Parts: sequence; structure tokens; C-alpha cells
Amino acid sequence: MRMTARPENLHQSRLLHLLRDEGPRSRAELGEMVRLSRSKLALELDRLVELGLVEPAGLAASRGGRRSAVVRLSPRLRFVAFDIGATSIDVAVTNGRLEVLGHVSEPCDVRLGAPAVLERALELLGKLRDDGLLPQVHGAGIGVPGPVSFREGIPVAPPIMPGWDRFPVREAIGRELGCPVLVDNDVNIMALGELHGGMARSVDDFLLVKIGTGIGCGIVVGGGIYRGVSGGAGDIGHIRVDDDGPLCACGNTGCLEAYFGGAALARDALAVARAGHSALLAERLAATGDVTAADVAAAAAAGDPAAVRLIREGGHRVGQVLAGLVSFFNPGLVIIAGGVARLGHALLAEVRSVVYRRSPPLATGNLPIVLSELGDTAGVVGATRLISDHVFSPA
Amino acid sequence: MRMTARPENLHQSRLLHLLRDEGPRSRAELGEMVRLSRSKLALELDRLVELGLVEPAGLAASRGGRRSAVVRLSPRLRFVAFDIGATSIDVAVTNGRLEVLGHVSEPCDVRLGAPAVLERALELLGKLRDDGLLPQVHGAGIGVPGPVSFREGIPVAPPIMPGWDRFPVREAIGRELGCPVLVDNDVNIMALGELHGGMARSVDDFLLVKIGTGIGCGIVVGGGIYRGVSGGAGDIGHIRVDDDGPLCACGNTGCLEAYFGGAALARDALAVARAGHSALLAERLAATGDVTAADVAAAAAAGDPAAVRLIREGGHRVGQVLAGLVSFFNPGLVIIAGGVARLGHALLAEVRSVVYRRSPPLATGNLPIVLSELGDTAGVVGATRLISDHVFSPA
Repeated sequence: MRMTARPENLHQSRLLHLLRDEGPRSRAELGEMVRLSRSKLALELDRLVELGLVEPAGLAASRGGRRSAVVRLSPRLRFVAFDIGATSIDVAVTNGRLEVLGHVSEPCDVRLGAPAVLERALELLGKLRDDGLLPQVHGAGIGVPGPVSFREGIPVAPPIMPGWDRFPVREAIGRELGCPVLVDNDVNIMALGELHGGMARSVDDFLLVKIGTGIGCGIVVGGGIYRGVSGGAGDIGHIRVDDDGPLCACGNTGCLEAYFGGAALARDALAVARAGHSALLAERLAATGDVTAADVAAAAAAGDPAAVRLIREGGHRVGQVLAGLVSFFNPGLVIIAGGVARLGHALLAEVRSVVYRRSPPLATGNLPIVLSELGDTAGVVGATRLISDHVFSPA
Repeated sequence: MRMTARPENLHQSRLLHLLRDEGPRSRAELGEMVRLSRSKLALELDRLVELGLVEPAGLAASRGGRRSAVVRLSPRLRFVAFDIGATSIDVAVTNGRLEVLGHVSEPCDVRLGAPAVLERALELLGKLRDDGLLPQVHGAGIGVPGPVSFREGIPVAPPIMPGWDRFPVREAIGRELGCPVLVDNDVNIMALGELHGGMARSVDDFLLVKIGTGIGCGIVVGGGIYRGVSGGAGDIGHIRVDDDGPLCACGNTGCLEAYFGGAALARDALAVARAGHSALLAERLAATGDVTAADVAAAAAAGDPAAVRLIREGGHRVGQVLAGLVSFFNPGLVIIAGGVARLGHALLAEVRSVVYRRSPPLATGNLPIVLSELGDTAGVVGATRLISDHVFSPA
């Protein structure tokens, strides 16, 4: 497979990003947006056409004078996303504008280990390829549910991914697909998805808090992911809520994840069902032998007081930790996402109530705290945003 | 007074920053550092000489061929720092390399209000001017002990600065001195001081935690101050430690500042002295009618167990909050500074012990937590770093 073309300079890079984010534009419009002379712009665009990244797309409607030629990203551009969760794989193909052309998802236990999970991911991609969606691949972005050395493209000591530690994910997939590949933490990937196509489109500094099996935070500073000095930034699941809280899998007590998150919520719901404090949850337990976070959401929606209380208590703990992060980081937006976020407005109301009461007025005066509206597409869009930012930058 | 000259482009800006941070350099060295051709470099340097920012400084030692001409920042460059604390004013004058040429400091209650405090600051600057240190002023940086709208150069609802809210500090000092002026929070200013001349010189992402009358945090991301969307970032004094802690001046309970910081420590030390749990502190109370954080430091240094316990407990609370911030931000360095930081290694040991136990291994594996070594000069150096970054950038 031939090498993916990359722009040669920052002007070309800026043009590609504009065509990705704004869609087809006339040469006249592009010239104004990037502040290049007509002749210089023509030179850069011609080069992008030669590289196969851009192509002419007819003439613009007249703005009075001569009609300006419209250009667009090549419709043959394809980016691939692998969003690997604790219990699922999502694989998607997008065009250059990051519009999802095909998306498959299936349950998959990440604990099967890197070789098995990545092989299954490639098989799923094969299905999309069989559908004719993938004439070629210009880049692939991968999200995994654990800490990643972004520079090396490998998971580093990921707690819930046995068999993945230091596995060369980027190298393995890059060899298979013959294109540039980047690997990041799944929460960072979701934050990029929100930045590209969600509530955060015009926000430079924001937090995405993912509450799923675990709890993590994507941090965006100045429109880019902040990863910290060793890639560990946003690991908020083990921030202390209380000294005398429940024992956590990490060995400390009172961590946020030990109070809330999918596993803790299921544990508490089971206790409530067994103790006979909730008819609905007890019914669920009798019917299926188990209760899940989704059962709690359904019970709360049906007005079950014990389920509502579980959600409120969890939201309160999340709010306590988030209030500290808002005081520290003064973000422009907080997005709550992930499976437990589907508990919805009862959760959101409690989180908001604590943050707005506990963080300083200067930080909360104009701070929206919202639920993600992207759902499962945040991860795949974010993964292609990550790799397209790379492919659309000079080598 | 004539306008301060500014560089005209990014090449000139980079040359000025290099000459500020690295000292005089030969044209040959500068050409290598900024990757400019000999002729292009000569053009930019000539222009900087014309602007009065740079001047020739003889010939370099031979490196084999023709001896290269050395250039340096104009020795007539002067930056001014006003570091206004809760109970003190520091005023300093530096040259273009931010070397302190003169520094005066005196107690001053910030609650006297903006007009009185700024007038006193200008009087102190007048003393330095009388000493001949200030032929002209190229820029002034100001730190104040409260939240600041950096863009507007005004304090915004600062809790401990009555009479300062929205006072046009930048405009007032700018009019008086006839030069560019920037105003920032005092903790941000200290962090810039550490970045310029302290432990953080080669660290891009770090935290400076100031524990004085109040507790605040300076956040450096990618070598620059991160201020948050409304300038409130780093306001960590009111992060919750416990639900059932002491009542705080902010109206919540269990805030970090309600547990520790100058005022809380003095309160607890007074209680210890009155209860007869410390002979040394009781003696101090009898002698002066009061006990201060400095008394606790002295008593701890003399081996007083009650004083050591106060410091340990405070360090433990700071550590609990800091552990959360380290999990979230994954910094490359944490510096502890401010008056209470003079409690020294007993404090540091306790902070470290909590952070290293409670934050994830990926974040603490290579994380130094240190006491500031700059002391009072961090603020004034940081203030001139702030304004020189501005003056040495294109208008």
C-alpha cells in the first residue's frame, strides 16, 4: 500500500483542516480565511490536488464578479476508528470530513488480551471493507480503556487490560493497515469527539468526565488534549472522597470509583435489592440473577425511591470531586458521558448542585455542566479526529 | 516618555528571548540557535539595534575561523516588578536579563485599598529611581493577592482585597510609568519566577502551591501560565477536604484553607498554647499576646511535639488535596512555596507521604515535590518575566 500523503507546510495544513471542519469552500473564501494571496493560495491548493488530498468541485455561486472555483477534500479519503472499551469494540470508517460512513459494534471483553481483541477489530474492519467503504486507508485512530504512552503508542500498566501492558498496538495495526496510526486513552478520544462534533465545538478549555465501568477525565487545553508529563492526566477515579469510605481495588479506601461507577453502582443496587428496599430491583434480581447500572436507571425512571437515592448519592460523590477540579482548572464546560451518565438528569442535577455550591463563583459563574449528546459516536469521531489532525499536519 | 520598542516579527522575538535567557551570544551561535541564514540574521539584529533593544558587545573568542561579533540586550533595558501581597509590598528593578538591580520591601496592608497601596508602591519605586537604577522603564509586571481578569488588568471580586474590585490597576500604573503593564494573580507570578530562575527552569508542566495567609496554585502548561476561562484557575484554597471540617470564611465547611494556611495554623496554635499542650507556644503567647505560624515553625524546630503535630496535620490536608490534583494533572514537578512553606521539611515529608501513597503510580513515578528555593525573589522575577515576555513579543 502506498504511503499516505501529508501536507508540506503549515499553509497546506491549515487548508486541509478548514476543508475538513467547514466543508467545501471557494478559492475566494479560502483565500480570505487563511490570508494568502491569490497566487500563493493557487500554488498550495495545486500541490494538495497533486498529493491527492484535495480536488476541484465546480464553481461557486457568483458573488458579483467572476465565479470562484470550489475545492473539497478528496472523496476517496478514509479514516478508520477503533474504539476499544472494557466490554465492547466499535469500529468505524469516515471520509475526510470525519462523517461516519460505516460503524459496527459488538460486545468484546478487553481481558481477552491484545492479540485476540485487535484481530477481532481487524475482522470487523474487514466487514466494512467488504461493503466497499474502504478503497484505501489514510490513517487509523485507536482508543483503549487504560493509560497509554501516546508517544510510543502502547498501553502502560493498564489496570483493567491484562495482557496489554506495553503491547505495541500502534506498530501492530500500522503494519496491518499500512497507514499512520495513533493510540490514545478512550476518554481522551471521547473528549476529541466532543471537540469535533459535540457540545464543545467552540470551547477551548473543557473537561469530559466519563463514568462507565471506571471513571476518567479528558482534559482539553487550548483546543488540544492535555496528557500530562507521563500520559496519566485525567486519572480521577482514585481521587479520595473520604478517608473511611469503601475499600477500592487500588488498595486505598474512599476513592471515587469505590463509591460510584458501574461496578460500585451494581454492588450497591444488589445490596438494596437483597435488603428488600426496592421492589423493582428485587424483581430484577429474581428474574435475571443480577442487577446492573441499567436496572437502576430503569427503576429510577419508574419512580423507585431507592434507585433514585443511589443515583443521587453517586452524583453527590462525583460532584464533590468535580468541584475540586473546577476550582483548580476553571473550565469553560463540563460534559458528563459514559454508561452511568445514561442515568440522566437525576445524576446531572446532583452533580450540578454540589459543584455550583462548592466551587468559587468566578469558576462557576458561566459554567455549563451537561450530558453528552454524542453517545457512542463520540469515541469513533474522536479517534478519526486524532489521526486526521496528524495526517493533515506536515510530516 | 517615548513608547517602548517591540520586536517586529517572531524571529526578532526569539532572538530577544534567547539573549534574555542565555545571555550575550555571538552572531554565529545565534544563527545556529534560530536557524536563520547569515544575511537574514544580520538584518533582524540590525533592526533590533536600531530599536534600541540590542547592542554589539565586542568579538567572541575564535572558534577557528573569523571571530564572530557578540551581541547582547541593551544594558539600558529596565523592567519593574510590583509584588503586592496581603501584608507586604515588594518593588524591584531588573535589567533586560531579569537580574535584580534593586529590591525594596516593606509591610503594607492590602486592605488599605488600591489608591493608597499603589501610591506607596510608586513611592518605593521612586527610591530605586533616586538611586539611578531607572533611566527609563520598558515595562512593569504587577502581582496582586487575588483573582485577576488578566485581559483587562483588573482584580475581580478579590476576597481579601476590599476596595480593589475592578480597580483599573494596569491602566493606573501604565499612565504613571508610560510603559506596557500587565497584572496577574500573585501565585501565577511566583510560578513564572520558578519557571524563569527556579527549580522549574526545564519543566514545561508543573504546579506551584503557595501556602501563606491563603492557599493558591499556579498552573504551568507547556511553559506558560494556564489561567482558565475566567482567570480563576488554581483557586484551590476552598477545595473540600471533609464534609464535617471547620467552618470556612467562604461559608462552606471543611475547605483546605479552613484546615491550614497562615490563619488556620495561628488559630490552632493559639488553642494548643491556651490548652497548655505546648510549653514553647504558651511562652510565646505570654510574651507577645499572640502566636503565629513563624512561632510554630520555631517551636517545631526546637522539638516541640505539639508544634510538629500541627505541621504534620496541616501537611496531611495539603497532601490530600494535592494528591487529587496530581492524579488529574500529572505534573512534572510540584513546588511548595509561601510563608507556611517555611515550616520546612516536616511539612514537605507529610505532603510527599500522602501524595505518593494516594496518586496513581504513573503520575508519581517520576514526580519531584520540593520546597521553593527562590523565597521572596520568585514574585519579583516572575513579574518581570511576565512583562518581558510581552515586551519581547511582536505588538
